[in-house]
Amino acid sequence: MSELLEKAKKAKAITSELAVKTSEQKNDALRRISMQLLLEKDYIISENEKDIEVGKKNGFNESLIDRLRLTEDRIKDMAEALILLVELNDPVGEVLASWARPNGLKMKQIRVPLGVVGMVYEARPNVTVDASSLCLKTGNAVILRGSSSAIHSNIAIVNVIHHALEQSEIPADAVQLLEDTSRETAAQMFKLNEYFDVLIPRGGAGLIKTVVENSTIPVLETGVGNCHIYIDGSASKDMAINIAINAKTQRPSVCNAAETILLHEEWAKNHLEDLIKALLDKKVEIRGDEKVRGIHPEIKEAIEEDWGTEFLDLIVSMKIVENVDEAIAHINKYGSLHSEAIISETAENVERFFNYVDAAALYHNASTRFTDGFEFGFGAEIGISTQKLHARGPMGLPTLTSTKYIVTGTGQVR
Amino acid sequence: MSELLEKAKKAKAITSELAVKTSEQKNDALRRISMQLLLEKDYIISENEKDIEVGKKNGFNESLIDRLRLTEDRIKDMAEALILLVELNDPVGEVLASWARPNGLKMKQIRVPLGVVGMVYEARPNVTVDASSLCLKTGNAVILRGSSSAIHSNIAIVNVIHHALEQSEIPADAVQLLEDTSRETAAQMFKLNEYFDVLIPRGGAGLIKTVVENSTIPVLETGVGNCHIYIDGSASKDMAINIAINAKTQRPSVCNAAETILLHEEWAKNHLEDLIKALLDKKVEIRGDEKVRGIHPEIKEAIEEDWGTEFLDLIVSMKIVENVDEAIAHINKYGSLHSEAIISETAENVERFFNYVDAAALYHNASTRFTDGFEFGFGAEIGISTQKLHARGPMGLPTLTSTKYIVTGTGQVR
Repeated sequence: MSELLEKAKKAKAITSELAVKTSEQKNDALRRISMQLLLEKDYIISENEKDIEVGKKNGFNESLIDRLRLTEDRIKDMAEALILLVELNDPVGEVLASWARPNGLKMKQIRVPLGVVGMVYEARPNVTVDASSLCLKTGNAVILRGSSSAIHSNIAIVNVIHHALEQSEIPADAVQLLEDTSRETAAQMFKLNEYFDVLIPRGGAGLIKTVVENSTIPVLETGVGNCHIYIDGSASKDMAINIAINAKTQRPSVCNAAETILLHEEWAKNHLEDLIKALLDKKVEIRGDEKVRGIHPEIKEAIEEDWGTEFLDLIVSMKIVENVDEAIAHINKYGSLHSEAIISETAENVERFFNYVDAAALYHNASTRFTDGFEFGFGAEIGISTQKLHARGPMGLPTLTSTKYIVTGTGQVR
Repeated sequence: MSELLEKAKKAKAITSELAVKTSEQKNDALRRISMQLLLEKDYIISENEKDIEVGKKNGFNESLIDRLRLTEDRIKDMAEALILLVELNDPVGEVLASWARPNGLKMKQIRVPLGVVGMVYEARPNVTVDASSLCLKTGNAVILRGSSSAIHSNIAIVNVIHHALEQSEIPADAVQLLEDTSRETAAQMFKLNEYFDVLIPRGGAGLIKTVVENSTIPVLETGVGNCHIYIDGSASKDMAINIAINAKTQRPSVCNAAETILLHEEWAKNHLEDLIKALLDKKVEIRGDEKVRGIHPEIKEAIEEDWGTEFLDLIVSMKIVENVDEAIAHINKYGSLHSEAIISETAENVERFFNYVDAAALYHNASTRFTDGFEFGFGAEIGISTQKLHARGPMGLPTLTSTKYIVTGTGQVR
């Protein structure tokens, strides 16, 4: 039997056992993993070093190497995150609703784990700990399919997790890593509906597209963020510039960073100069539409493709619009249903924006950078959903659960 | 442009307009459709007659013809269902949660429509009205892809719906029928992620499998029900027989009917005789395991395939088990995660069953036939989900919605 099938079967086989583990049993396991990561940090770092060497040989750039690298500090962060996770409420077993029917049937809807989660991700070994611990807390079995370029790190981390689980009441098979990272095996995995309840891709647009297009298993689509800041005519100058700069530059490589700034023509008339100066001070490359370039011909032209691009870099496209409706139409045409902000002091425009923009999170007078499970107060995050089914926006622990109806009768028939 | 693409674009174009229609505007449209169906009943029936003639020529059996047939009574039932739908609470706009963050951000999660729903179904013209009205009530645009064998009926019904919508404040494009029912066009539809937010297949196992395996759009999987009745050692004889007979025979062609009866050996020792007699009285064909046939050699043998089959007919497979754990293991191996019942007076066995059986709805001392949106008190049902994401079990109106986070700030940045 292939490694994939063997591990998938093992995962499936323990789902009902995992579903009834108590919060204390699961928390005990999380605490042990936290300690074990610290105890075995040297082993993890030395295995990680192997991946980094291979990465360098393969010409990874500094940012890819940085993503891949595990340091003592980063391992400490992981260990701390596990302890914070212990503190969070366990959603499993929560009664979501209970009612009685006229025929005397008593109905109850309770939260249960999803079952087997397939996590598909890139060369970020921190996701290995992150996904394992969130799945463990919610009583799910997880099969991790990471990148071949992080394979030594991932094997080491999963070994450490197993060392911890072996001392706990959670079976070690709750967390399994696919050591075979071939595309063929991934393609097989995406069709194993019999064993997997959900696939969660985490990574760039290419990875997510591959999973969405090739999976017959339900997918929780995460991530791509082509976010906009719309500055309305009545927006305060300082607030608007401050939010635009924050959304674009505070961490340009993430999905909730802004990619396009839309300006009401009235606001642009008075403040475009200052906004452009602030962006240039932060070394942002601006790509403007005709109206922007009518005022500032030195600015590079935004081509059609730019409006739909998640730059993930210090680049911003900029367009002047006549009114909030033109902004809404632009966002609904090019946005990725992630996070969209309006900066305005005009209540009716804010209401229009909230009503008509289709996205997971809409902001009034705040930065799009807040779309994040921790910033939302969820205490954890398995990703940010840009699809509409099951979960939308930052996904906390309840996202990793399904429900069950429990019906108690006294002999009722139809 | 193809019919599919043209209609998909039209549907997508009106989603934000539909999302802000008031409950009263939507209810007014539902009332008008209800009236229009009655007013144009002769037109619908005469168009339906064409489908029936073709069906007869093509050798449809009586049960298929019956599903296809629209009579004055059935049209009246549809019209009545629309009026009942008016009474139901509109989930759109409902505030699911609201909270504030330490930084002063005010968060709110509200229900919004899904957007564009693709309904894929078989030769049941009543689904045309049903799906259209549920989507309309929840502010969704729907594209209906019915069966070619119901095409005249479907065109007539959608014409009637359009006549009603033209008098209402809901755009007629909210409900569109694909007149091209070719497989090639369906295959294209299943990949139009840009336009469709969800596909809902309704029909037999084959149809559902086709959609699940070929769609890149999220699917709400419905329907297949291989349901079990487990009669525990302590079960009351009369209650157990009554429930087993009801679950098997009251309407054998539906997904929540039972397909297998599992018997505790103690109960079988005392009451097998009576159960078999009751089933035979109802003309049920029994297929037994070795133990059943050890007592009743005249009973047909259940082969491996029988345990996994949704008979949808007066056939039942029957197995004697040693204890509740053997019953649970059998159900988790062969069940379709739909509805499972335990008949028992032993609290700890019931608890074990509720904890360890993986299914959308679990019953104690009641028939599996209650898994139904109306029986659950939801007042409507778009199908019964046998998957774990988004919705599980009977799907009422809220299933046709997603959510949006609305965040209000005073200039917050990270």
